[in-house]
Amino acid sequence: MTYEDWVRQELREWSRSLGFHHTPDAEIKNRFTRIRMRMQKEDIEALLVVQKMNLYYLSGTSQDGFLFIPLEGRPLLMIKRELERAKVESPIKEIIALRSIREIPSLIRTHCRKLPVSLGLELDRLPVKDYFRFQEFFPSAKLMDASSIFGETRKIKSSFEIDLMKKAGEIGNKVYHQGQKVLKEGMTEIEFGGLLEAEAKKYGHEGLLRVNSLNYEAYTWHVLSGPTGGIVSQSDSPMGGLGLSPAFPVGASFKVMKAHEPILVDFGTCYHGYQADETRMFSIGRMKQKFIDAYKACKEIHDTILGEARPGADGQAIFMKTLKLAGKLGYKDSYLGPPGLQTHFIGHGIGLELNELPFVAQRQSYPLEEGMTFAIEPKIVFSREGSVGIENTVAITEKGYEILTLAPQEIFQV
Amino acid sequence: MTYEDWVRQELREWSRSLGFHHTPDAEIKNRFTRIRMRMQKEDIEALLVVQKMNLYYLSGTSQDGFLFIPLEGRPLLMIKRELERAKVESPIKEIIALRSIREIPSLIRTHCRKLPVSLGLELDRLPVKDYFRFQEFFPSAKLMDASSIFGETRKIKSSFEIDLMKKAGEIGNKVYHQGQKVLKEGMTEIEFGGLLEAEAKKYGHEGLLRVNSLNYEAYTWHVLSGPTGGIVSQSDSPMGGLGLSPAFPVGASFKVMKAHEPILVDFGTCYHGYQADETRMFSIGRMKQKFIDAYKACKEIHDTILGEARPGADGQAIFMKTLKLAGKLGYKDSYLGPPGLQTHFIGHGIGLELNELPFVAQRQSYPLEEGMTFAIEPKIVFSREGSVGIENTVAITEKGYEILTLAPQEIFQV
Repeated sequence: MTYEDWVRQELREWSRSLGFHHTPDAEIKNRFTRIRMRMQKEDIEALLVVQKMNLYYLSGTSQDGFLFIPLEGRPLLMIKRELERAKVESPIKEIIALRSIREIPSLIRTHCRKLPVSLGLELDRLPVKDYFRFQEFFPSAKLMDASSIFGETRKIKSSFEIDLMKKAGEIGNKVYHQGQKVLKEGMTEIEFGGLLEAEAKKYGHEGLLRVNSLNYEAYTWHVLSGPTGGIVSQSDSPMGGLGLSPAFPVGASFKVMKAHEPILVDFGTCYHGYQADETRMFSIGRMKQKFIDAYKACKEIHDTILGEARPGADGQAIFMKTLKLAGKLGYKDSYLGPPGLQTHFIGHGIGLELNELPFVAQRQSYPLEEGMTFAIEPKIVFSREGSVGIENTVAITEKGYEILTLAPQEIFQV
Repeated sequence: MTYEDWVRQELREWSRSLGFHHTPDAEIKNRFTRIRMRMQKEDIEALLVVQKMNLYYLSGTSQDGFLFIPLEGRPLLMIKRELERAKVESPIKEIIALRSIREIPSLIRTHCRKLPVSLGLELDRLPVKDYFRFQEFFPSAKLMDASSIFGETRKIKSSFEIDLMKKAGEIGNKVYHQGQKVLKEGMTEIEFGGLLEAEAKKYGHEGLLRVNSLNYEAYTWHVLSGPTGGIVSQSDSPMGGLGLSPAFPVGASFKVMKAHEPILVDFGTCYHGYQADETRMFSIGRMKQKFIDAYKACKEIHDTILGEARPGADGQAIFMKTLKLAGKLGYKDSYLGPPGLQTHFIGHGIGLELNELPFVAQRQSYPLEEGMTFAIEPKIVFSREGSVGIENTVAITEKGYEILTLAPQEIFQV
């Protein structure tokens, strides 16, 4: 039996028996319907999907390839490697081999009997060099930016997607309980972070947290204790931590964790590409009262946000309300960062990537909609002392919200 | 004391005490000299460095910012976040705050008293949208592709860099020894991978393996046992493994590891951004003779490559020699992948990213040079049965080579 025959005959069932959930045909069709409505509105005749998470979203596979979506007619999935696995993973009917990207125009011409007059590309991600090649490949097409078409389509999640996010949330719950078992005085932040990750992996956490950015790298080992919790770094986040080196100056460090310090664990999990983001507090012995009080304030802000979370609510209005509440509670200068370095969001969309739509933030005035998923994360930062916070990932439902991250909200004290 | 004062006064010493090696001034100056020689040759008046690893290489910091390098005169580092940390980490003299990327042209004009006529950008990485903005910012400048300037400069490593890669190699050595302690029959691949990663983290492994690619994601948990070792995936690699889902269809899976199977562990480590890549074999009980013989062949090919590794040797010629040897040893159809899916490289450059220059591969005919670092990885793949292989990261020295990954080369049998 050749390798190809083996994949064709056995890989589907075998990978299912090892936990694979393949995206159903109806799910993909529904996504096509929704994205085509946006294509029509923006007068784009076809899309060429290049980026891996957009490809996975629209085809069910993340093998190396390109997906051509005409406004009318059948989509064409061209796969460089590995073709037979793509056929196993994707419900798309026309999946063909792509030997070289130079073949793309001729394969499309054969498929559609013409080349599109306008072609939407992911200009927020596509490197310039690749863009120049596409200009050569489609000399008479108008190349248009389809970034927002992908973003707007992906921002409303189906129940299939929300179920995968819930599974990510279940892994997070196991991680926090494991944290309570293994945390010990004298351990470094990075050692603790590594043990939490090992636990998450065991249950299917895919290790990485994807984000649409050239330079911002998401990571799961955000364990900050005492003063490292007060350090700001490259990312637009209330606190970044010290990290391990100037090459990775965020997240857990070699700092030894001590008794009575606030230990903030902001741990993201990824299951079948879908993420859940969650923050909980740990301490070895009782945390100082100052931090316990600040954590209560974070909880109050968190619950206030949820009290507003429903279809139609405005993200910016919710953010402004939390600013006011944080001030009233006495945390004007420590809410969401140290003075002068405070961030301007309290919630970020999440799904296949961190920082999807919607944002619950300044200058982001639009209504929440059923099927949106985002993480809310009120945090309070005391420079040189430490940080506290809570974070949950929620989905907007028909009448309100559902929390997808279900670890207990009490401080994990060991 | 404000947050900023605290960072200025205490962060340098504190982070050093927690393991930070800051890039020395002389090291950065030397890199500037070398990159300016290439700028002159290509007639580029200035570079604008955007991508994080190029920024770290040329400034010593990876905070969020942009580095402007004129052919003559002082470089200017503009930092969005976090300015005070960038000042602690980088030996560059002129480091200023950047509130919005719109300020870039005016800050450069103030610094140089004019805007450059030609500006080199990283067109292999820069997203199209950002490129359009730079076209607006520098309407009269010729925007040129500086990708190869960065690649060619970074391909020769200094002793400072090679020392960091050796530290990454030392972490790898600890990982393989830990593997021998924790590997047990009945464990899944991903559970084993997670435990190896936790060990690596403890010693400063930064968790991620960076690679210059829109879609190819490197990862450390490449643990393949028996038949999963025969599965090809999206990456240009002899075998990809099954992975955990269609969203991450590479690397370790939920497959349970059994006695007598070949267990291939291809584990990359990252220390201060610098990577070391290493593969070793494990087995629970004795591996079947077929795999032991194939592993011996991999070792022979590995040693043959090293016998050729010195300044002046041609990478393509070495690759072709290994093809011939693999055939002679009886592995024509299994060397570097299953029939029809075999890869065409035996070595890839490594440093701040995987897949840097040089390649030891087909169609890569150029001489090796002192200071080049690359990983060599002869692997043999039997579809439906399993894979074996060995991999080490080496540096080309004045007269030959030095191996940077020093785990024992015998099969780790438990």
